[in-house]
Amino acid sequence: MRRVAIIGTGMTEFGELWDLSFRDMGILAGFEALHDANVTSEKIDAMFVGNMSAGRFIDQEHVGALIADYAGLAKTHIPSTRVEAGGASGSLAIRQGFLSIASGMHDIVVVGGAEKMTDVGDDEVMNIQSAAADQEWETVFGATYPSLFALMAHRHMHEYGTTREMMSSVAVKNHKHGSLNPKAQFKREIRPEDVERSPPVSLPIRTLDCAPISDGAAAVVMCPLDMAKNFTDRPIEIIASAQASDTLALNQRKSITEMAATRVAAKRAYEMAKIQPKDVDVAEVHDNFTITEIMAIEDLGFFEKGHGGRASLEGKTGLQGEIAVNTSGGLKSRGDPIGATGVAQIVELVQQLRGKADKRQVPDAKIGLAQNVGGTGATVIIHVLGVGR
Amino acid sequence: MRRVAIIGTGMTEFGELWDLSFRDMGILAGFEALHDANVTSEKIDAMFVGNMSAGRFIDQEHVGALIADYAGLAKTHIPSTRVEAGGASGSLAIRQGFLSIASGMHDIVVVGGAEKMTDVGDDEVMNIQSAAADQEWETVFGATYPSLFALMAHRHMHEYGTTREMMSSVAVKNHKHGSLNPKAQFKREIRPEDVERSPPVSLPIRTLDCAPISDGAAAVVMCPLDMAKNFTDRPIEIIASAQASDTLALNQRKSITEMAATRVAAKRAYEMAKIQPKDVDVAEVHDNFTITEIMAIEDLGFFEKGHGGRASLEGKTGLQGEIAVNTSGGLKSRGDPIGATGVAQIVELVQQLRGKADKRQVPDAKIGLAQNVGGTGATVIIHVLGVGR
Repeated sequence: MRRVAIIGTGMTEFGELWDLSFRDMGILAGFEALHDANVTSEKIDAMFVGNMSAGRFIDQEHVGALIADYAGLAKTHIPSTRVEAGGASGSLAIRQGFLSIASGMHDIVVVGGAEKMTDVGDDEVMNIQSAAADQEWETVFGATYPSLFALMAHRHMHEYGTTREMMSSVAVKNHKHGSLNPKAQFKREIRPEDVERSPPVSLPIRTLDCAPISDGAAAVVMCPLDMAKNFTDRPIEIIASAQASDTLALNQRKSITEMAATRVAAKRAYEMAKIQPKDVDVAEVHDNFTITEIMAIEDLGFFEKGHGGRASLEGKTGLQGEIAVNTSGGLKSRGDPIGATGVAQIVELVQQLRGKADKRQVPDAKIGLAQNVGGTGATVIIHVLGVGR
Repeated sequence: MRRVAIIGTGMTEFGELWDLSFRDMGILAGFEALHDANVTSEKIDAMFVGNMSAGRFIDQEHVGALIADYAGLAKTHIPSTRVEAGGASGSLAIRQGFLSIASGMHDIVVVGGAEKMTDVGDDEVMNIQSAAADQEWETVFGATYPSLFALMAHRHMHEYGTTREMMSSVAVKNHKHGSLNPKAQFKREIRPEDVERSPPVSLPIRTLDCAPISDGAAAVVMCPLDMAKNFTDRPIEIIASAQASDTLALNQRKSITEMAATRVAAKRAYEMAKIQPKDVDVAEVHDNFTITEIMAIEDLGFFEKGHGGRASLEGKTGLQGEIAVNTSGGLKSRGDPIGATGVAQIVELVQQLRGKADKRQVPDAKIGLAQNVGGTGATVIIHVLGVGR
């Protein structure tokens, strides 16, 4: 396999972007990434687009071709591929871009992720999000995306003594990080009591335990590592790409206090990258709910199973902690435009490994890890990045 | 790049499959392919699923994980990836499976395609299909999928003298082939006058110019060519995979009597396979409407531009013609469950190159080509298959 590097990144601000259409967002993120990479558009060989549900959000499938078209790339007829795995759609696009270069098929590849969620009503957003869970065994009976994670949270509290306070600490920390990120949807800090007084969604999950509904797009430019030095002094290498699946429905799993797919994908990723969990300096993990981050930092091996809540409360995952988690603000505070999220995680890690993360910089960050979840963990994708040599 | 072979195929019958759910169909096709390949499910390294719009047809996104789950593969946590490019979703899955093996990432890969279209009303099917065209510039103004192809047909008639009779001959030929295919949706022959008397959809396109609405799934098993001999005496190699895009909206194209993406993808495919159009013995092309097959056989270089209609009328694309086109019955007669179609094309070519196509066998077929179209040609994917050596 050829080694693959990221040479440019771009993203829109995340939030309620009333003035930008789906196609506008895709173009803005893409052009920022091309500019950052010093690549002109006629050099692009292929594009991959992560998107969960444009078919339902904006009545538009076939968004791979759409974005290529609006980026002016129809004239070079580049292949453009849309991939989907619920909330993990963005990192799935990263992975397909990686494979297409690793295989030798393509050299310069743009990977984008985008979702336009705010053009439909809130109820409909909930229905659409929940379509990443099992329609026949969960959502048709009224289970929603938050209610499924509430089951996990309850059980995690029961088995490990995880508390309301620990969950709140995750939200507080991620808002703090988000306040340092100019592109975050929420750039303001919150207090634990804000989380605890926020309206219940599906207890124990409250409004401020949840990632928001967001519009946004993110993009990266990739190429073979041995070509990357032509474009940048500091290419960031994708040193591992791993993906695992699990049952779509929660009720089929042995445990709902862990994501088995995270554990399996992490094992594969650590082997491929030849690293241990302790080698990771900075991680972006999937915090669609506060409990999800707690499970992630356990399943990734950063903390022992059942200790993730306490570690969060003790500040071990903050910028000055043992391992900096969700320095971007995470889904919680940076925002979660579904298909864009996995790509935005990579954008953040690249900034960190370049040493360009400004006020949220993790000193001397050398290894970054991104974990991105689809559904309630039926797809988990992990990428490990390092400074290219 | 590692060389890649197909070692097994499976598919459901196509049609209105009231007794089979989306997941049932996926499993049936997949298990038939595994059985054909002599591969047990624990040997599978990854899965790719082509599907256009399960989110709207059955309220279910995340169908990569769904199919892996219902195939019993959640226990081995294999990566499973859904891809989408409108009507080209199936061949897009073939291509991603191909890249994943060519790269060295995976060895044994199952590629499936599936769509369950008949669980929603006919009007809604039309809306969903049309979402592969440009929502902002076409469908929002009332353009539908058939009406866009009707524009192409009218212009083709105007520029090249293509006639009603020529278009009818495509439908007649494909129904004839379909009558020889036990898995075809329509296993009966039709006469030219049946096409000409069928109700108008969007003139010049009549009902019998159109591929039907279908349920169905198809699957193949792939592995590196050098491993294929462990499973089969006659592996079928993917000797080229090429993909090209074009503008999503018709009105942005220089010509609507050709698909530029077909011409570009064909050029790339012929170069990669080191063949000429005349070397192709059997082709499955995208005949969602009769005019689409006429354009395809021109744009693929089988016949001169403007001569495709006459060639069809003269029987040059029949089983005994110069080049056998759509021996399966094509989308027209075999059926067109959108995400399954591109995979079903490959299933047919594998049968032909194995010499196992029974009454529709093309004598001594050595090179097969599949051309699969998304939208009105904004994505075209071409694969060339040969007998593995």
